[in-house]
Order: sequence, then structure tokens, then C-alpha cells
Amino acid sequence: MQTVDTLLINGTVLTMNAAMEQYSDGAVAISGDSIVAVGSTAAIQAAYAAEDVVDCQGQIIMPGLVNTHTHMPMTLLRAMADDLRLDVWLMGYVMPVEREFVDPAFCRLGTQLSCAEMIRGGTTLFADMYYFEAEVAAATAEAGLRAVCGQTVMKYPAPDAASFEESLAYTRQFIEAWRDHPLIVPSVAPHAPYTCTDEILQACTELALEFDVLLQTHILETRQEADDSWTAFEKKVVDRLVGLGVFRAKTIAAHCVHVDSEEIRLLATHGVAVAHNPTSNLKLASGIAPIKGMLERGVRLSIGTDGAASNNDLDMFEELRLAALLVKGATYDPVVLPARDALLMATRWGAEALHLGHLTGSLEPGKRADLIVLDRDPLHNSPRFERDSNSVYSQVVYASQAADVMHTMVNGRWLMRDCALLTLDIATIRAQAVDYARRMETFLNAREGNVLNKLVAIGGLQQEESFEIQVKARVEDDTPVRQALEHPLVEVMRHNHYRQYDTYFLFEDADQGRVRYREDDFITRDGEVGSVRTRLTYTIPTKAAEFDEAVLLSHSRFIAPADRPLRFYREYFQARQECEVHKDRLRWHILYKGVLFYINLDEISEPDIADRYVEIKSRTWSQRDAHYKAALTTEIINDLMGLGREARVRMEYVDLCLAKP
Amino acid sequence: MQTVDTLLINGTVLTMNAAMEQYSDGAVAISGDSIVAVGSTAAIQAAYAAEDVVDCQGQIIMPGLVNTHTHMPMTLLRAMADDLRLDVWLMGYVMPVEREFVDPAFCRLGTQLSCAEMIRGGTTLFADMYYFEAEVAAATAEAGLRAVCGQTVMKYPAPDAASFEESLAYTRQFIEAWRDHPLIVPSVAPHAPYTCTDEILQACTELALEFDVLLQTHILETRQEADDSWTAFEKKVVDRLVGLGVFRAKTIAAHCVHVDSEEIRLLATHGVAVAHNPTSNLKLASGIAPIKGMLERGVRLSIGTDGAASNNDLDMFEELRLAALLVKGATYDPVVLPARDALLMATRWGAEALHLGHLTGSLEPGKRADLIVLDRDPLHNSPRFERDSNSVYSQVVYASQAADVMHTMVNGRWLMRDCALLTLDIATIRAQAVDYARRMETFLNAREGNVLNKLVAIGGLQQEESFEIQVKARVEDDTPVRQALEHPLVEVMRHNHYRQYDTYFLFEDADQGRVRYREDDFITRDGEVGSVRTRLTYTIPTKAAEFDEAVLLSHSRFIAPADRPLRFYREYFQARQECEVHKDRLRWHILYKGVLFYINLDEISEPDIADRYVEIKSRTWSQRDAHYKAALTTEIINDLMGLGREARVRMEYVDLCLAKP
Repeated sequence: MQTVDTLLINGTVLTMNAAMEQYSDGAVAISGDSIVAVGSTAAIQAAYAAEDVVDCQGQIIMPGLVNTHTHMPMTLLRAMADDLRLDVWLMGYVMPVEREFVDPAFCRLGTQLSCAEMIRGGTTLFADMYYFEAEVAAATAEAGLRAVCGQTVMKYPAPDAASFEESLAYTRQFIEAWRDHPLIVPSVAPHAPYTCTDEILQACTELALEFDVLLQTHILETRQEADDSWTAFEKKVVDRLVGLGVFRAKTIAAHCVHVDSEEIRLLATHGVAVAHNPTSNLKLASGIAPIKGMLERGVRLSIGTDGAASNNDLDMFEELRLAALLVKGATYDPVVLPARDALLMATRWGAEALHLGHLTGSLEPGKRADLIVLDRDPLHNSPRFERDSNSVYSQVVYASQAADVMHTMVNGRWLMRDCALLTLDIATIRAQAVDYARRMETFLNAREGNVLNKLVAIGGLQQEESFEIQVKARVEDDTPVRQALEHPLVEVMRHNHYRQYDTYFLFEDADQGRVRYREDDFITRDGEVGSVRTRLTYTIPTKAAEFDEAVLLSHSRFIAPADRPLRFYREYFQARQECEVHKDRLRWHILYKGVLFYINLDEISEPDIADRYVEIKSRTWSQRDAHYKAALTTEIINDLMGLGREARVRMEYVDLCLAKP
Repeated sequence: MQTVDTLLINGTVLTMNAAMEQYSDGAVAISGDSIVAVGSTAAIQAAYAAEDVVDCQGQIIMPGLVNTHTHMPMTLLRAMADDLRLDVWLMGYVMPVEREFVDPAFCRLGTQLSCAEMIRGGTTLFADMYYFEAEVAAATAEAGLRAVCGQTVMKYPAPDAASFEESLAYTRQFIEAWRDHPLIVPSVAPHAPYTCTDEILQACTELALEFDVLLQTHILETRQEADDSWTAFEKKVVDRLVGLGVFRAKTIAAHCVHVDSEEIRLLATHGVAVAHNPTSNLKLASGIAPIKGMLERGVRLSIGTDGAASNNDLDMFEELRLAALLVKGATYDPVVLPARDALLMATRWGAEALHLGHLTGSLEPGKRADLIVLDRDPLHNSPRFERDSNSVYSQVVYASQAADVMHTMVNGRWLMRDCALLTLDIATIRAQAVDYARRMETFLNAREGNVLNKLVAIGGLQQEESFEIQVKARVEDDTPVRQALEHPLVEVMRHNHYRQYDTYFLFEDADQGRVRYREDDFITRDGEVGSVRTRLTYTIPTKAAEFDEAVLLSHSRFIAPADRPLRFYREYFQARQECEVHKDRLRWHILYKGVLFYINLDEISEPDIADRYVEIKSRTWSQRDAHYKAALTTEIINDLMGLGREARVRMEYVDLCLAKP
């Protein structure tokens, strides 16, 4: 008779092991962090004794659920804004609130709240992607859950990093600090192909390979992403990732809603695991992922809730049920993904997708004791049939609820007993969460009457641009530009001629930013107006960084097609002041030393300042890149155009106009 | 100060009334069966006093949920058989078990179990369709829930009626007995267009109109139904129903997955309400109903769980969440059916769909007190935002769970307080349900080795035929047939020539029925074999009724295309005996007095009995119709063919062969 720490007896044991063994009157013996034995109650009790013996009569003993894609801290944003178009939701609500509130304390608290919900609902392992991931890791370790924590890297400035280089450095530090932890597995999370440059994707891949950690990313959540990839790279998203060698790293990709059959084949070939997020994909109207095709191709499948901001909870029972149902209805195939396989996706296959199949995901001797005990006969699951060994999977998948979880254990430690959470101070966490919600609400309310808010309210915000390098100089005529264009290191890609009629709306509070309504008349070679486009641009007040005396690192902007007349916007925004700027613009796209720049030669006609200006602009993603491009810009203006510092102008046109008496 | 029976105070009140009024610190006053007042806690407490004052701090007070389509007793079949093709599930499991077990006691117990689950999960009104509906009504009334109870009518024999005339008579009696009940509203439920003849649909409509009761039915659950309607009636399903005048009755149609845009327009025009059943439609792989089109056209929409056999629970929180999510993902439209409207579908719109909007579905003075109190801040719904009045609908729809329901009241009576059920003896009900499950399991296990079960196991069972009138006579030559075909009252529709090679598999136990493997060679005018078809037919042992000496009312059969070779079936069925019958068959489809009959002139070549027989057959759906066709059949054989009683043969060919020495 061997003494162990804990015995669970008299339950229906679902091992979820390779043979899918079940014990109708089963038991599990646990010592330290691990499972010692699984078998019939009689056999286990004959061989093992323990002080902590848990009678699981009328209950199911099974592996804890594995949530392979979530954003833990975003639980603090649950139901903050729902039933909105993706752009309005993301750029109008989630991103502004994240910019304002996401800091280490936010991430820690949000993780604690999410851990509490997960433990209550039977999740024992999750994969997270967010900012300040060390905080997520620390809070999770304290709560006692197992997690793969992925530090986000992307080309935009993030709450925890001003540039991707900073993120990468932070990620490296994070991996080094956490890689030997018994519960936490650090990882690198390049946010998505459309938010990462090739350089970022490759750097993340190298980091993942260097430390042999998982690479987490979002792939093809929306149809738009597929279209945009083709436009921007002339490549399908998965082809681009294969080409960049990203899949040399152990990879798990969330969503994969819009992968085509060829891309599915590539995911299978390269062993990329997929985190299926049915609720979020439906709620944000992204679509229905081709799970049947992935199953047929042998893609490694798993299930994730995504963040609570788009779910709106972290309930894996709901998620695995929806996964099992949705694929059937969407393909008219009632036998695809039977309950048994849906539950595998949420247990063993999930652990394997995270490359933790050797440690968890099934009840087997030697594996960590990550398990849950579930009420087998609640009202909503009565009566019960035992004729077919699949019936019990059907019970768990089609009718069990998070509230049916009685006990939760991770790494041999009880995190919940008899529905009572043991590792988290729920009252304090909830009080702090309520406090955060009130502060976020105050922030959002203060935004009422705010310009961006009003823009969001009318819908149609389209994109967020990134950093821009810009230099401007006053010129007498077009000589400096002609000179530059004829330089042997300059290649002219494209040339356009516009007349631009800008109306600026200026507000009392300068922090509100500015809205520009622009009519862009495209002028043909014959001097006719060829086509007219109207756009609304919102410029956020920005802390511009200067790299050189006259080179600005300007901040991002929101752009929307202006599908209503100028009168509408005038009445809608009720600006303190309006300012008109009309100009004739000659525009060139050039390559200088292989880098793309835009050169504008502008002649202002309204107000009557009768001046000519040249502008040199380039987009940039990282600090290093900005430095490099700033240097090139200086070369163009100094050396190619011969315009000295005295010619440079640091104001926007609208400010020049406003400065006029 | 007015004294009332009950005051609910300090809650977030969602009235769901036309103005969608909310009270963030609200109260409801209840007297007798009705709501007296709804308002702020301060206002209600200033005007009303009660002995029973319920503090709903941190809770939501809202109308109970309305489940507009279910089959209450089928909860006893929950998870009995899952992840099967519709035909295998229905004909292999559900129908055989129903034939064996459905009786008044089954319906009463199943209803009690379902009521318990519904009360626990916050449903206060449901619409049911099943057999022995008086039992459903009685059990529901005892449990205290409100319900529309629909007695099923169809062309097949049902557990509670041998014919549709019996069902109709039973329905009339049921309506008369229950029409003045305070909780139960009786209704008539013609099962579906494809299981009802025109005559049945019209009779049900007249009954509904006579008593001004609701007509419940299933419409276009599957694509197959649309195809079959076209084949059988040369009409779309909804067109057929409009043509028959069915929608003159107050109608609610479940599923409506495969209605096209023209049919949606007709549903809207005729005021037909739709019960949307997203879980069942996904689980059985029926498809995704075009809810967005229905919303745009103004169809009266509501939500139902369908029976627990295809759901597998009666959880309206899950159902309304899925309704809100699914339409977004399926149409790529994130703003369609926002949380607020999804909750309306499950409350006021649901009551209106059942023509009970004047009584229930919202919290308004004068309406019945049908309400629930819901935990507003469980872990999975924290934190909470109050900035937008839609946030609370979002909380209820996207993250609330059945387990969050604290109290349930119907008609002013508490059915659940603090999660404890007050009107049902759960322990007894569950014990009885377990007992039923064991008996059903025993029945199913006994079927192992059974022929139908084996047929089911190989899949592909295709249809269940109905009753057949049949008469057979021995003839010397084809004179009697020729004579009949030339009769002025006979119109020949079609003529075919076959050679049929039948192999019968006969089993030890005659109750097991017979399986026939038939090769049907179609013979062209040139005497060539034009095409070959192989089919498997399973004949259930039947209590044939005789209408005349030689006219049989034969029972229904299962047919499957035989897509495997004869050898496979021989080895698979391991029959006790095989019997070969080969014949040459001349077949005519004729109309006699406008009724369709099939005439076969058969010459048997194997075994060598060298006889000729004539068969007259016709399909029938009701007892009255069978009597009528039996009389016509007798006319044909007696008067047109001149074949007396002495010529008649009452055995099947296989039995004739077996009777040979």
C-alpha cells in the first residue's frame, strides 16, 4: 500500500488518453504535482492510501479544459462596447481605452479576474497574448493555473513599448526570466501578419527558435486581411509566413477563419496548430472557420475563447459546445466533429497544440495533475444513458455548464473545492475591477462631445496610420525638386497632380485634435479634373519626436471616406473655428537608395499666402527605421535639393495659415 | 399606501416594454397573478407595502424567458443517441424508442423533468408539440409554468392515435377541456407539411379557426423538405400552405431554415411567427436559418430550444446567445440582431409570437407576474459598465448563464426562490427518469443483433412508407388486366416493364421482420435491359387490417439504396434462411375514378411455380381513405377484371415460395 497525497474515488473517469479509456467507477491517485495512477476505484484503493480522499460519486473526473487563445487582461473590458462594427469597436473603444488604462496594474488585475473565472469554469491551462506579459505570468502563477504567456510584438506603439525593438527586448527578458517556471511557459507573440513587418516576423521567429518557445499569432481573422495581404504583398497570408520561415518555430495561430484549402494544407504540412475561436468569430462577424477541412487535412486543432471583450466570457464549456455545433450546421454534416473529438480539442489536443502534451491534457500516470471534477447528473443533464461509451462525451459537450464544475486542481494543487476558490481573494479583485470599470466609464463619458467619439458615432473610420517622417521647406520655384528627381540615385515611381481643397475643423480644447475634410481633385495630363475624392482625416494630438532640426516623427491618423456633404460635418462637429487651405499639388513617389519617399510640390492659393513648399515624407515602423529614414530625408533636402536649414518650415499648412494676421 | 402581495426592490429592472424602460434602482409590485406597478424603488415603496419584500440588490429583475418551440417529454431521450445522421437518429433510435415507450406516464414525467430545468433556467412560458398533450398540460399546470400545448396530428400512426382522424378528435377534446385554464393555452399542431396531407392540414386549420387557437408546425427544417415538396406537389412548401389557407389560423412555424426570400415575404405578409432553433439546426446539420432576411422583412421572430433530444438541454440563455451570435457570423454583419433585440426575441416578441403578448413577455402593470431575478454580477459577468443602456442587455445575452437565475415567478406564484424549486419533487422525478433511461437502454441493448439495428448501423435508411392497400389474384393470362385498362373509367398514366430478382433474408425470430435485396432491371421497348437499380427493403412485422376478404392494409417499410454487393448483405445479416423470387413485371400507374392505383402483372420464374398474378395497390394515409380505396380496389378486381374471391391470394410471393414443398 503506497501513500499518496490525494485520492479521487467513485467517479466516472474520462482519461482522454490515446486509447480514450474510461472507468465508470474510477479513481485517480495524485502525489506532489503529478498523477500516480488511474484506474477502477477498487484497483486504486487496493494499491494507494491518502489522507485527502475525495468521493466523486455522481461526478465526472476529467482533464481540465485547455483554452488556447485568450487575452486575460481584456476581461476588464467585458461588455464595455458590443454590437459594433469591428473598426468602431476596436478604434473607437478598445484601443483608446487600452491606450489610457493598460499598465502593469491593469494587466495583473485583469489576469486575476480571468483566472478566477477560468478556475470556476474548469479551465486549467490557457495561452495568453497581451502586453506586460510578465504581469500576466506572475498573476497566473500566484493563482496556480498553468499558462503559455505570449508577449505581443507589433509595428505600432503598444502600451508596453514605443517600438517593436523595445517589445522584442522586453520579450527576450521575459522569456529568460520565466523559462524554468513549473506553471508558466513564456512565448513570443507577433500580433498578426498585418500588424507586423517582415522584419518583425523574422525577428520573432529567430527569438522563438533561439529559446525553443512557442510563437503565437493571429492569422486571417477577417476576409479583409486576405484581401489586404494580396494588395500589400501580392501574396496570400500563409504563403508569406511560409516564405519568411515563420513556421520553423513551434507555432499556434488563432482564428484562421479565412484560410483557403491550399493554406490549410500548408498549416498541416508545417505542423502549425490552430486555435479555433467560434464565439468571437461569430460575434465580430468575422465568419465561420473551415474546421471540417482542417480536420480532414490533419491540422492540429484546439479551442480558445479569445478575450472576454469579444466573447464576452471565458467559458470553455460554451466554447467547445459551439465548436461541436457550428461545424455541423455550416457544412450540413451531422457526424463531423462528434462530441468526443470536440472534447479532445478542448483537452489533450489543446495541450498538444501548445506543445505541452507531454505534461497535461489527459489523465495519465506521470502527467501533471491538472483535472476537474464535474457534476454528472445536474437537472439539465438528466437522465443519463450508459449504453454507448460516447454518451458521456455527449453529456459534457452538449449540456454541461461551467457551473457544474465542483473541484479544480492544477499541478496537484486544489484551486477550487466544492465551488469555492482557494487561491484568489475574489471580493478584493471584484471591488478593484468595479473601480477600474468606473474609471474607464468616466474616461469614455468625458469623451462624449469629444471629436474622435463623434467620428466613431457616425461610423466608417477606416484605418490607423503609423509614424511618418516629414520635412518641409519653402521654395521659390520647382528647381530644387527637378534637381532631386534627376539625381542618379533617385528613381521616380509615379507622378500625380491634384488640386486639394481642405477645410479644417478646430476645437476649443487643442487636445481634441483636428478634423480635416479634404476634396481631392485628380488632374489629368490635359489639365482636366479627372476624378474627385472626399475624405475625412482625424489627427490625434501628438508628441512629435524630432530627429533632426526639421524632421518630425508625426503621429498616426484616422481616415474615413467622407460620404456626406461638407455641410453635414460643419453642423455635426460644431467647431470653434474653421480654416480653409487650397493648394495645387504635384506629387511624386520616388525611391532613393531603394527607400520609398513621397515628394509634394505645393502651391497655396487660399489663404492668399502665395507660397510654394516642398514636402518630403516617408512612413516608418520602428525607431531604427525612423532614424535611418530621417537621415535619408536630410540627404534629399540638403544634398539633392540644396535647401538649407534656413528654408525649412516646421508648421503644418493649417498652422501657417492660422499664423497669418 | 396600497398593500400588495409581493414587492421586488433594489434591482435593475428591465421592463422590455415598448419603450424599453429600465430602472437602475427599480422595483416591481405584484398582487394576485398580476403586476401592479413597475418603477424606481423609491416610487414603488412610497406607494406600496407588502409582507413579502424581496431585496434584489446586485440582481436584474426581468420578464421570464419564452421558449417558443420544444418537445417537453423528449427530455427523457436526452443524449440517448447523438452525432448521427438525421435518418439514423430519427428512424434508428428516436422513433423506435418512442413507439415502445411513449405513453401518458412518459409524457407526464418528461414534462415534469423539463419544467424543473426550465424553472431553474429562467423560462416562464413555452410552446410544446408532442403526443398525449393533455398530460403535458396537466404536468405543466401542476408545476406552475405557463404554456401553449400543441397536440400533434400527422398522417402516420402516432403513439397516441392510430390515424389522423383519431388525433383530430383527441385534439378537439383537448382544446375543449383546457381552453379556459389560467396557465395552459391548448393548440393544434399538424406536425409538418411533409408528414401531413392537404386534407390533414386543412382539417387542423379549420379546428384552429373554430376555437381561435394557435396552429403550431415545423416548416422547412431541412433542404430535403424543400426538394421533396417540389417533387411531390410541384409547389414550394410555403406556397402550398398559403394555397391551403393554413395561415388563416394564428400560426407559429418552427425552424424555417430553408425558406427562400419569397417564402420569407409570405411569412411576413400572413403574420406567421417563426420559432428560431439555432442549436438544434446546427446539431442536426439542418443549416442556418436566414434570420437577417426575416428581420428585414418584419417576420415575427422568437426563439425555441427544440426538444432536448436534439439540443441537448432547454437552456434559453444559451439559445438566445447563439441566436445573437450565429446570424452575425453567417452574414458578416456585426450589428444585426444586437443583444437588446435578441433578448426581445426571447421575451416580449416570444410572447407575441404565441399571441400572448397581452398577458406576458414584459414587465408592465396589468400583465401577469411572469418574471425572473438574475445575479447581475457573477464572476463571469464582472466588471459591469453602465454608460450605455444597452450594456445590461449585452450582459444578459452574451455572458449570463442559466445558473445565474435566483428566483422564478409565474402568474404571481414563486416557482423558485434562492435557486430552490418549490413546485416539483425533484428527487422523485429524477429517480423515475433514471428508471426510464435504464429501461430504454435495456430495450436498445436488446435490439443489438436486431435486423433494423443492423440496417441502421450501416446507414443510409431512406424513408418510411405509409400504409398500403393491396389485393392479389392468380390469373391464367393477361386478359383481366387488359380488360380493366380498357375500361372507360380507367386512365393509364404510365407503363413500365421490369425483371426483378429478389433475395429475401429471413430470420429466426419472425418479429425481426424481413430484409429484401432487389435487383430491378428496367426493360426497354426493344426488350433490352435499360437500367439496373438495387435496393434494400426492410419490412416491419405488421398487424395488417383486412377491409375485405383479400384487401390488406400493409404496414410501412424502410428502403435504402443497396450500394454494396449482395454478398456483403448475405455475410452481414447472417440470415437463418434465404429465398429467391424472380419475376417478370408489367406495371401500370392508372387513375380509376381519379384515384391513383398501381397494377402489376407478374410472371414468376424462380422458384419454378410458373404462375401469373395480378396485384392492385394504392397508398393511403387515413382510415377513411383506406376504407374508400379498399372499396375501389374491390370494384377494380371484381367488376373491371372479373376476378372472383376464389382467385384471390393473401400471401406475399415469398410466402408462396416458402409454402412450396
